[in-house]
Amino acid sequence: MNVEIIAVGDELLIGQVTDTNSGWIARRLNLEGWELSRVTLVRDRRDEITAAIEAAFSRVSVVLMTGGLGPTKDDITKKTLCELYDCGMHRDERVQAMNEERFARRGFTMNTLTRDQALVPDACDVIYNPVGTAPIMWFDRDNRVLVAMPGVPSEMQYAVTHEVIPRLRTRFDERSVVCHDTCLVRGLTESALAIRLADFEESLPANIHLAYLPKPGVIRLRLTAVGEADAGVEEALERYFTALITELGDYVFCRQDASLAGALGLLLQERGLTLATAESCTGGNIAHEITLVPGSSAYYKGSVVSYANEVKTSVLGVSPDIIAEYGVVSRPVVEQMALGVCRVLHTDCAIATSGIAGPDGGSDAKPVGTVAVAVACRDKVHSVMLTFGRNREQNIDRFTHAALLQMVGFLLD
Amino acid sequence: MNVEIIAVGDELLIGQVTDTNSGWIARRLNLEGWELSRVTLVRDRRDEITAAIEAAFSRVSVVLMTGGLGPTKDDITKKTLCELYDCGMHRDERVQAMNEERFARRGFTMNTLTRDQALVPDACDVIYNPVGTAPIMWFDRDNRVLVAMPGVPSEMQYAVTHEVIPRLRTRFDERSVVCHDTCLVRGLTESALAIRLADFEESLPANIHLAYLPKPGVIRLRLTAVGEADAGVEEALERYFTALITELGDYVFCRQDASLAGALGLLLQERGLTLATAESCTGGNIAHEITLVPGSSAYYKGSVVSYANEVKTSVLGVSPDIIAEYGVVSRPVVEQMALGVCRVLHTDCAIATSGIAGPDGGSDAKPVGTVAVAVACRDKVHSVMLTFGRNREQNIDRFTHAALLQMVGFLLD
Repeated sequence: MNVEIIAVGDELLIGQVTDTNSGWIARRLNLEGWELSRVTLVRDRRDEITAAIEAAFSRVSVVLMTGGLGPTKDDITKKTLCELYDCGMHRDERVQAMNEERFARRGFTMNTLTRDQALVPDACDVIYNPVGTAPIMWFDRDNRVLVAMPGVPSEMQYAVTHEVIPRLRTRFDERSVVCHDTCLVRGLTESALAIRLADFEESLPANIHLAYLPKPGVIRLRLTAVGEADAGVEEALERYFTALITELGDYVFCRQDASLAGALGLLLQERGLTLATAESCTGGNIAHEITLVPGSSAYYKGSVVSYANEVKTSVLGVSPDIIAEYGVVSRPVVEQMALGVCRVLHTDCAIATSGIAGPDGGSDAKPVGTVAVAVACRDKVHSVMLTFGRNREQNIDRFTHAALLQMVGFLLD
Repeated sequence: MNVEIIAVGDELLIGQVTDTNSGWIARRLNLEGWELSRVTLVRDRRDEITAAIEAAFSRVSVVLMTGGLGPTKDDITKKTLCELYDCGMHRDERVQAMNEERFARRGFTMNTLTRDQALVPDACDVIYNPVGTAPIMWFDRDNRVLVAMPGVPSEMQYAVTHEVIPRLRTRFDERSVVCHDTCLVRGLTESALAIRLADFEESLPANIHLAYLPKPGVIRLRLTAVGEADAGVEEALERYFTALITELGDYVFCRQDASLAGALGLLLQERGLTLATAESCTGGNIAHEITLVPGSSAYYKGSVVSYANEVKTSVLGVSPDIIAEYGVVSRPVVEQMALGVCRVLHTDCAIATSGIAGPDGGSDAKPVGTVAVAVACRDKVHSVMLTFGRNREQNIDRFTHAALLQMVGFLLD
C-alpha cells in the first residue's frame, strides 16, 4: 500500500517549525510494510491544500494530513475539507463533552473558539482525540481515504498509533511486507565501500536493495527487502545481510540500526565498562545523545557540563596553569577533563570536549569550529584537535558526533 | 518570488533521516523576502523525481533540489536531470582537479565512483563545491531555474549561502519584501488569546497576518507583513507589533523570536543572574537547549548530569536518606539537587530534574512520564511533579520544556 503525507502550515514553509511528523509517520508506516511515497508541505491556503490533496489522490489511495486544525483563524484545513467533500459542519456532542471535561480538569474556561473545535464536517467519521481538543477526521469516498490529524506531535502520534494504523489495516487488508536490516561501518569512504560491495550489489535479487546513509566517518548501510507476506522475504533478507556483514568484516562496528551513541553503548556493555562525559562546547549534547538511548543508565553515569572555566578547575580538577599555558581549547585541558570526570563520577571511560562553537570566540590560531576531544579508558587517554565550520548548531552536532566516534575508535583500535 | 523545494531520497521517505534542509533553506529564503510555497519529498525514483519537477515548474519559476547526488548506485538525480534536459554528460576538469586535491589532502585514494562525481550534465552551469565532491548544477531554460545540490547539510548550506542566493538575486532582480516580528506569550490558552486579539486581527490590513505557534504553556505569536520594497512594510509591521504587545501586556514575556531557553537567557541577563542545571532524566538536554543560544556563557555556568544516583549524592550532596524516604523522583530530591548545583557551580539560580523518561522504570505510583522539577533562585526553591506520556524521546523534550518554563515563571511571578 502506498501512502502520501500532506503537512499543512505556514510555519513549516517559513522554517519556523521543522516538520518532524512526516519522519515519525514514515517510520511507523514502514513497520507495517506500507510505503510512504511522497510528502508534501503546503501553506495554510485553501487552493494549495486542495490541489495537493487532488494530486495525491491521483497517485495513491491513502492520504494522511497533519496540521491546520487549531482553533484560530489561520487554521483553515477543516473548512477546506468541507469544500472539497462538499459538505457542511455539525457540532459533535461527544467531542464537545470531552473538551469541556478536559478544560474543567485543567481549570480553564471554554470560549467560542474552543467550543468550535467540536464542529466537524458532515462527510467524515469522527475519531475521538483523548489528548487534545481537535478531533481526527476520517474521510472515505470513492475508495480513497483521507485522514486529517492535528499537527501537534503528541496528538498526531497518539492518533496514528491507536486509531489510524489499526483502521487502515482493517480497511485495506494489506499483506505486503517491507523489512530492513542495518549495520554501521567505519574506516571506508562511501565510494570505497561501494566498490567493495559492487559484486554483492550485483548479486541482489530485484526485491532486495542496498542504501548508503553516510555521515562523517560512519556509513549506515541499509538492506531492504519487499515482497508478499509468507514469501520468505525476511529469511532472504537475513541471508543477504549475513553475506554483507561477512564481506565487510571488521569495517562493521555495529550490526543493528543504532545511533552512534547507541552503538557505543553496545560496545561498552559488551566490555562491562562505564562512561562519563565532561563537556564544554558541546554543552550537554553528548550526554543528551547518550541518554536518548533506552537503558543507557546501565553504563552511563553522567556528565559535568563545565561551561565556565571555573567549573573545569573546581569540579574536574583541571590545573589553572595548564589552562593558562595551552588555552582552554587544547589537548592537555581535555585530557585532564576526561581523567577528572572518570575520577569524580567513578567510571572506567570518559569523553571530554572543549571548543569554539561560534559564532564568536575564535582566533587566528583557533578559529570558530575548532574542538579538542579527549577519550579515556582506565587511565589511558587519547586526544585530538579537529576543525569544522562556522555554524554554531551544526558545530555542536559535529563536535558531538566526532567525540562519540573517537570513543568508539579508542575502544576498537 | 515563489520557490519550491524538492528533496530527494529514500531515507527521507522511510524516516531514517529527517529532512532539516528544507527548513533551513526556508529560513534563508525568508530573509531574502522570497516565499517558499511548497516542499516535496520524493523517493530515489526517476519517474517520481521527474513528475515532481514538472509539477513544481507549473507553479513557480525556481526549484531548489537537494539530495541524490552521491557517488553510489542509489543516487540517480544527475541521470534523471540529463533525461529531463535531454542532454549527455561530460567530465568537468575543474571538479575533477578539486576532488583529486581534496582526496590527496585527506590521504584517500580516488576510485571510479569518486572520479565520476566530476561528470556533469551538458545542459547545466556547474557551480563548484569547495566543501564536498558533488558539484552543484544550475539549469536555466525557458525562464525557469532548477538548482540541484547535495543533501549533506553542510554542503547544501554552503551552496545556498555563497552561490545560489546571490545568483538568484541577480537572475530575477526580485524586490518584494517579507518581514516578521515575533513574541512569546504565556498564561493564556491559544483560543483565549485569539478571542483577546479578535479586534486586533480585524484591524490588520490585508498584507499583515497574525499566526499562532502553540507549545504547551507557551504561544509564539508571529506577525508577518508582505509588500513591495520601499512601501513602508517594515514600519507598518513595527506599528502593529507595538499595538499587539501593548494589547497583551504582561502575558508577553519575550519580545523577540527566541527559543524558550533563549527567552530565559534574556531574563537572566536583564537581572544579572547566573544559572546552573542538575539533570537526571533530561540527561543534558536542558544544558543543550541553553547552550544552543549564542552568548549563553554570559549567564550559564554548566550542568551536573547526575544520571546515576551516586552522582546525585557524591557531587550534588543530595542526602541518601531523602532518596530512601521519598524516592529519587520526588520534590525533596530535586530541591536538594537544585540547591546543590547552585552551591557546587556557584550560581544564583538552578533548574533540576529527576523523572522516568521510559520506556521502562515506571511504577503505579510514578508511571513512565513522571518528572519532578525544581527551580531555585538565591536560596528560594520551588518544585512540582508533572506527568507526561510514554515515549522516551518526547518525554525528554517535554520535561526539558516544562523545566525551562518553570524557571521563567519562577523569575517572573
